[in-house]
Amino acid sequence: MKHIIDPKLDLVLERHAAFAPELIWKAWTKPEHVAKWFAPRPWTTAECQIDLRPGGQFRFVMRSPEGQLYPNVGCYLEVVPKERLVWTDALLPGYRPSLEPFFTAIVTLAPDGKGGTNYTAIALHRDEENRKKHEAMGFQEGWGQVYEQLIEFIGGAQL
Amino acid sequence: MKHIIDPKLDLVLERHAAFAPELIWKAWTKPEHVAKWFAPRPWTTAECQIDLRPGGQFRFVMRSPEGQLYPNVGCYLEVVPKERLVWTDALLPGYRPSLEPFFTAIVTLAPDGKGGTNYTAIALHRDEENRKKHEAMGFQEGWGQVYEQLIEFIGGAQL
Repeated sequence: MKHIIDPKLDLVLERHAAFAPELIWKAWTKPEHVAKWFAPRPWTTAECQIDLRPGGQFRFVMRSPEGQLYPNVGCYLEVVPKERLVWTDALLPGYRPSLEPFFTAIVTLAPDGKGGTNYTAIALHRDEENRKKHEAMGFQEGWGQVYEQLIEFIGGAQL
Repeated sequence: MKHIIDPKLDLVLERHAAFAPELIWKAWTKPEHVAKWFAPRPWTTAECQIDLRPGGQFRFVMRSPEGQLYPNVGCYLEVVPKERLVWTDALLPGYRPSLEPFFTAIVTLAPDGKGGTNYTAIALHRDEENRKKHEAMGFQEGWGQVYEQLIEFIGGAQL
């Protein structure tokens, strides 16, 4: 469904990519690809599991430069190939409410008419406090950096 | 998707209805129908709004016998006509995490092969504490009573 952004509650990253939506979609939805670009360096993605359907899991483990592991698990909500991917950590796979809800993520891909993609990543929060917390954690820098890593990955990969 | 029940965390109500899945589906998904049976009497449903699609709202206002109003808003997650309806109060419409997550509801309808329906209502909770709280609030009695009201409604209505 069409998403309404609330500037008080939400964070938005917009970029233009020279690659087609199809390639970006693949990079976002195959665990072996996600593992290569999803953690902001020098962090790495130690594990990634994807069950690409509404209710399915999006699980990944981030590894800090010191080697500490940070597991995350979320639930896909909308999977519209080459167009829109929505998941949340407010639900576990199978839609069970989670213990530590923080945000819902929406990635949209729109063809620019010239072979490229208008790319948007949105984070929805339950209140202003959580939006500010996410901002302070470095949403723009972090998601911006992993977007660059995504583009670099696609440029060097045979997708 | 197929749902896995955890007896420690979940509550389940199972019934057999003489009516076809199609009629039960209609009664569950049209706001003017829901308003007639969804509140356990002597409570009533003062308002009901339904946007029947993943991400859409399921909003209702219950009125106590004393006239006090209790608004509820949830978000549909899966809408499979005549088969399965899933919504949660862990998300607001549009998938934003909510301030007071409590449970995800799954209603499944399966034809019994003789014109009737095997009916299941499931509530998924984030932990045992919330399951117990829901139980103490009268899940079995309340959902059992509104199931009876649902059947009574379908029996008397031209759906």
